[in-house]
Amino acid sequence: MKKLNVGVFGATGMVGQELLKVLYDRRFPVKNLRVYAGQSAGTRVNTPFGEKIVEDANTADYSELELAFFAIGKKWPKENAPKAVEAGCYIIDNSSTFRYDKEVPLVIPEINPQAIGDSRLIANPNCTTAIATIPLWQIYQNFGLKRVVISTYQAASGAGKAARNELKEQAELYLDGEELFCKEFQYPLAFNVIPHIDEFQPNGYTKEEMKVVWETRKIFGDEKILISCTAVRIPTDRAHAESITVETEKIIDLERVVEIFGKTSGIEVRDDPGRNVYPMPLTATGKYDVEVGRIRRDLAFGDKGLSFFVCGDQIDKGAALNAVQIGELVAQRYQ
Amino acid sequence: MKKLNVGVFGATGMVGQELLKVLYDRRFPVKNLRVYAGQSAGTRVNTPFGEKIVEDANTADYSELELAFFAIGKKWPKENAPKAVEAGCYIIDNSSTFRYDKEVPLVIPEINPQAIGDSRLIANPNCTTAIATIPLWQIYQNFGLKRVVISTYQAASGAGKAARNELKEQAELYLDGEELFCKEFQYPLAFNVIPHIDEFQPNGYTKEEMKVVWETRKIFGDEKILISCTAVRIPTDRAHAESITVETEKIIDLERVVEIFGKTSGIEVRDDPGRNVYPMPLTATGKYDVEVGRIRRDLAFGDKGLSFFVCGDQIDKGAALNAVQIGELVAQRYQ
Repeated sequence: MKKLNVGVFGATGMVGQELLKVLYDRRFPVKNLRVYAGQSAGTRVNTPFGEKIVEDANTADYSELELAFFAIGKKWPKENAPKAVEAGCYIIDNSSTFRYDKEVPLVIPEINPQAIGDSRLIANPNCTTAIATIPLWQIYQNFGLKRVVISTYQAASGAGKAARNELKEQAELYLDGEELFCKEFQYPLAFNVIPHIDEFQPNGYTKEEMKVVWETRKIFGDEKILISCTAVRIPTDRAHAESITVETEKIIDLERVVEIFGKTSGIEVRDDPGRNVYPMPLTATGKYDVEVGRIRRDLAFGDKGLSFFVCGDQIDKGAALNAVQIGELVAQRYQ
Repeated sequence: MKKLNVGVFGATGMVGQELLKVLYDRRFPVKNLRVYAGQSAGTRVNTPFGEKIVEDANTADYSELELAFFAIGKKWPKENAPKAVEAGCYIIDNSSTFRYDKEVPLVIPEINPQAIGDSRLIANPNCTTAIATIPLWQIYQNFGLKRVVISTYQAASGAGKAARNELKEQAELYLDGEELFCKEFQYPLAFNVIPHIDEFQPNGYTKEEMKVVWETRKIFGDEKILISCTAVRIPTDRAHAESITVETEKIIDLERVVEIFGKTSGIEVRDDPGRNVYPMPLTATGKYDVEVGRIRRDLAFGDKGLSFFVCGDQIDKGAALNAVQIGELVAQRYQ
């Protein structure tokens, strides 16, 4: 298999670090791995590929790379992705910068690998979308999707490394009876829930909630799916959970749903209530598959309704894993 | 105003303690307040009504009381409520024992005070139901309710005092990098979510989820309302949050919804996203009103859809406060 020169941009961040781990773990065909960052340029980092010197992302020569993973801000990719494409490099961008651009494919390999077409710039979806769409795509294909109602339970680390540390520091203070501070979140998150992720839009939804709507439609290639989402930050460390209710076009056959989910690549069915088996951050953290469980006929929609609960690692399927899976599709093109 | 002889049963428990606080705080017309418990009988407790000796609940003479609040297990009321009623005492029972009994009124004073009729035994609803129905009743009356989809974010203290302490102990261990134990919950709750509250039913829903269905229908006096609920325990200390989406019979006028909620006794509208104002456990804890916010047209249901987020103190409106409010209706009968 032809090996590629791969660059990881934002290599010292949470998603960057996970990208390195997943590339190694999935034996990605790497010839030479290089790591880039902004502020941390010049430092040394340990990676599964050995110790590396962090290069300056701003002076990268993309002609030396065949594939670059961007996990480095929102504005930065706007300027730098075009340069990389011009140099003949494939870019998989983790930010929301290009996701809603008609020219840029937004890809989940289990759903729309063909969308890549001949684009050298590929957008990686929002974490909440990636986790929800893996099971939703199966319902869409087999029963038709009329309406989707999602409520999320999102972990602190979805907001980055500093946010993750802030939750732990807040929890310590809370348990010591001290006053809490907050810098990364709008309010203290420890022992609290905050129904506010990303900026509010004029329609009363947050951008995080609208991302699920916009991105699911684009990935499924169907602008008609009706989706509403309530995105809520809760005091967990890692792995987002989502409570999902759908109204389908066809009558739901519950056994078939479980069978289909069971055969779907990217899903681990955890659905045995009698034995206390259901999706949880405790079990989903660090797992590549999205856990799906609590699968039941929805009482509000009757025959054409289904409710289920999912939990997925937002740093893996919600970011690094999906990006590497897209990278694997790109690597095939070099064979 | 005629003052009553009042007994609080289960006075050393979490709800019992809150009952004493709320009775005092709302200046309930108490002549003589007596406290009862099972195992803690004989001990002394500090109450807002002064220090009291805990009497043995099993040998209570109900003819000495005009009103008794039961916050003392599920089986115990089954045996003891009939005795109390026979002695001419009013009982407000916090357990689920009598809630689904056709002869026993299930009451939320803001919604169905008339349901008390001439019953001396009155059931207090489940916490999740009480918090959700305060705003839902307004939608039901003004726009008609076709479908309700609820996902909950329930605090540890909903499972009692030991569960509440367990979460804190687990959080300490987690932060110290130690292995977690669990006794009160099925799994460690600290930094986790558990989509499992109360026992699973044959239809795949938990009893907690079905309580919301059964109780809302009974309180509204409408067996046709379609409701589905996903009840999830999360690592918060106190106050349950709920993400609620409804399909209505009539077209939603958003401004009118906010206006109606604003005028509703028992609701505090916290709905100013631009200023980061929305319901949260941080602000709802210890509050008598249920916070309602994130009020917006639901994108999955269009014109006849509404989504909102509520947060209420499950020990107050979800238990002690609602019971005392029922008690106030009973007290009026003695005037």
